[in-house]
Amino acid sequence: MSRPKLHGLLLALVLGSCASAPTLYEHRLVDLTHTVSEGVADWPGEPTFRYERRAGIGPDGRWNATGAFSGSELSGTHIEAPMHYAEGRRGASELPLSQLVGPVRVIDVSKACEDDPRYVVQLSDLRRHERNHGRIPLRAIVLVHTGWDRHWGTPDRYYGTLDSARHPGLSLEFARELVSRKVDLVGIDGPSLDSALDLDTPVQRLFAENNQPALENLTGLDQLPPLGATLIALPVKLDRAGGAPARVIAIVP
Amino acid sequence: MSRPKLHGLLLALVLGSCASAPTLYEHRLVDLTHTVSEGVADWPGEPTFRYERRAGIGPDGRWNATGAFSGSELSGTHIEAPMHYAEGRRGASELPLSQLVGPVRVIDVSKACEDDPRYVVQLSDLRRHERNHGRIPLRAIVLVHTGWDRHWGTPDRYYGTLDSARHPGLSLEFARELVSRKVDLVGIDGPSLDSALDLDTPVQRLFAENNQPALENLTGLDQLPPLGATLIALPVKLDRAGGAPARVIAIVP
Repeated sequence: MSRPKLHGLLLALVLGSCASAPTLYEHRLVDLTHTVSEGVADWPGEPTFRYERRAGIGPDGRWNATGAFSGSELSGTHIEAPMHYAEGRRGASELPLSQLVGPVRVIDVSKACEDDPRYVVQLSDLRRHERNHGRIPLRAIVLVHTGWDRHWGTPDRYYGTLDSARHPGLSLEFARELVSRKVDLVGIDGPSLDSALDLDTPVQRLFAENNQPALENLTGLDQLPPLGATLIALPVKLDRAGGAPARVIAIVP
Repeated sequence: MSRPKLHGLLLALVLGSCASAPTLYEHRLVDLTHTVSEGVADWPGEPTFRYERRAGIGPDGRWNATGAFSGSELSGTHIEAPMHYAEGRRGASELPLSQLVGPVRVIDVSKACEDDPRYVVQLSDLRRHERNHGRIPLRAIVLVHTGWDRHWGTPDRYYGTLDSARHPGLSLEFARELVSRKVDLVGIDGPSLDSALDLDTPVQRLFAENNQPALENLTGLDQLPPLGATLIALPVKLDRAGGAPARVIAIVP
């Protein structure tokens, strides 16, 4: 059987029409997204997330619950498109789906971040991951698991303050290596890919220049294996925006 | 090999770590989501979608593009949670992922809708689909392809007006049959599951009472086969909201 045909068949078997597929979906889907509500999702200095609920019995005597929201396009779990930091690059609505869905590697630095809340992820962390789990292939998705999501909901702790940022981030050497591997998408379970020690956002600017979007404010990365899962990161399709809120899930085998 | 083990292996082969998986992703992902921008996405009478862009060279001499948005939680391609029309039911952040990802059936009524812009989808349309493609299994996702998405971007045409709604919708008999099949999720490429001829939203209230969320304002359903594709519908995780903007894609074998 040819390879494309084999793939088609496997895909149909696993995802399509076999009777037990729903059970498989039920047990293998992991949500990596924070719930968004007022007061938990705001980067210091950015527009505040607001939600106005209108729920109750309407003039017609029947129940209706709806609402309106407003806020930064980078509220909550979100994607930053290359356009955010690189003029002329792709915006949130223009990212190819092929960059948003794919095999994911999870690099675990949670122990180091527990000891040092401003830990800067090193090239040696990537080398260690590869010694244990094999080389990260071209065009993979790479997530960095810091464990920082446990501070979500306490903004002063999670973001630090405008005067004193405090969270883990990536070293430029680590980022350069991911660029050389042509990684499709990079993500972290903290407020920024850039270290709190460097306010010039060199890491995010590097990724943006290389057409690599970034996921921030992920959660639950401890539920993923180091390799073998598939990430699905779907941002709201905001026209020509620098970023957008995203729902991010994983299929774990 | 046991069935769970076989599934795990197939999943790993197709979605996980095999070398040619990226190619498969690239060619099989279909976006069913409208791009959201000002002036195209507003249900008459609901809060208007607004986007405020802030892009340019910042005080630090470097490029930065970001923005803030506001609008109804039902702007653009969106999901309506059962809570929207049924008190005490699940909100947008509480929908199980197992209801949002799964095998999808596409019922094509585009020809009838071309002839009659207020076409009401009949039980006979479902019967015809099943004669041609087999019985819709329990817990499937069902999308109704009307072709109405071609009017997107011309709100008066797409929604009709407050005084005179004008778009296709589902008959109550059709909806009742989908309830009896315990369908996980129902969607349409028009502004409402309910017919423009009935302003009491009986169809959506029926689905809500039965814990079935609804997708509205889909697009591109002509790119899907009648069966065999997998739908992935991921709404923004808005806390206890009646609905939320969603990004909806399909994996087509």
